Amino acid sequence: MELINQLNWRYATKAMNGEKVAEDKVQNILEAARLAPTSSGLQPFEIIVVKNQEIKEKIKPVAWNQPVITDCSHLLVFAAWDTYTADRINYMFDLTNDIRGFKNEGWENYRQKLLSSYPQKDAEVNFNHAAKQAYIALGMAMVAAAELKVDSTPMEGFDPEAVDDILGLREKGLRSTMLLTLGYRNEDEDWLSSLVKVRKPMEDFVTVIE
Amino acid sequence: MELINQLNWRYATKAMNGEKVAEDKVQNILEAARLAPTSSGLQPFEIIVVKNQEIKEKIKPVAWNQPVITDCSHLLVFAAWDTYTADRINYMFDLTNDIRGFKNEGWENYRQKLLSSYPQKDAEVNFNHAAKQAYIALGMAMVAAAELKVDSTPMEGFDPEAVDDILGLREKGLRSTMLLTLGYRNEDEDWLSSLVKVRKPMEDFVTVIE
Repeated sequence: MELINQLNWRYATKAMNGEKVAEDKVQNILEAARLAPTSSGLQPFEIIVVKNQEIKEKIKPVAWNQPVITDCSHLLVFAAWDTYTADRINYMFDLTNDIRGFKNEGWENYRQKLLSSYPQKDAEVNFNHAAKQAYIALGMAMVAAAELKVDSTPMEGFDPEAVDDILGLREKGLRSTMLLTLGYRNEDEDWLSSLVKVRKPMEDFVTVIE
Repeated sequence: MELINQLNWRYATKAMNGEKVAEDKVQNILEAARLAPTSSGLQPFEIIVVKNQEIKEKIKPVAWNQPVITDCSHLLVFAAWDTYTADRINYMFDLTNDIRGFKNEGWENYRQKLLSSYPQKDAEVNFNHAAKQAYIALGMAMVAAAELKVDSTPMEGFDPEAVDDILGLREKGLRSTMLLTLGYRNEDEDWLSSLVKVRKPMEDFVTVIE
């Protein structure tokens, strides 16, 4: 199991050394996120890739001043849809029909089902649902990074509204939900790098119903 | 990139052939979920592994009668904490101290910070936060399954309260948030198996800030 090795190798890197991650590797990481499954295939989130150092410097103070924000190579902002709209749902169904080259009655009925439920729901409920889908992709992106021996740090410790403001996300109908830095660990500066990974034992984590 | 191949190979399998997945493979899939990172390392969810056919039969009608519920080998129920409590937070901090063999002032301060915030928050807010963490692990579990050429189907299409009732989750302070079937695809019976995977093009998914 390569994956288990990769998951044991990775950790939430707290200090990075400023080395740049090659663009082909970043593309692979983004591709893994793009291929992640989402509810009804709607992919209700986007990723903002911040390479610009000034923007990273602006985000740092609204992210607990974590040094990894500016020492990373690329800062990925996972931004979920602020709600589900008819346009957004129709985009994905139309794209599916275009790519597959045909319309299917069952699929069109399912479109109507979503159109008659999601857009009428509370925006906060929809955003929470969309954000969960982004977390699946976040997991895939972290695995992709580990496979490439690129370090990554998932971070919820930031002020989402301030980040939305800096990146102009609200106007796009997006809300930041998670940050993921990409780069290379600076082991000498990282208090966490030498500590043992801690996880609940399997018996506290899993219950089997035979 | 093995991961990209695995993500292209996997799909939300709609029909499985009943073949059992070997227990060592199931253990690897659960181990990937266990190793998934979570906010503050709290691992605020558990996995119920349903092997029992009668229980699967009970879940099927509250999961849109999807045949894969009963045709799968193992049905994994990702169940998030219904809220964050002091006991749950202390368990993870104590476990960390036990495993690492020392107490650290910064870590203890962080424990107090969480104790003074999470348990006082609205349970629904806490549950949503916990559920998001489970989605990261769901992603890891799906990658593990694909690496082992085990099919899996992530499913939100079920009545969570009914599943909680069937599995007695409420009494454990858990709420089901996602199902994941494990098994082997039955291509002849699966309307989705021959269809092209559809994803948004990269330009609609990623914005780069140079």
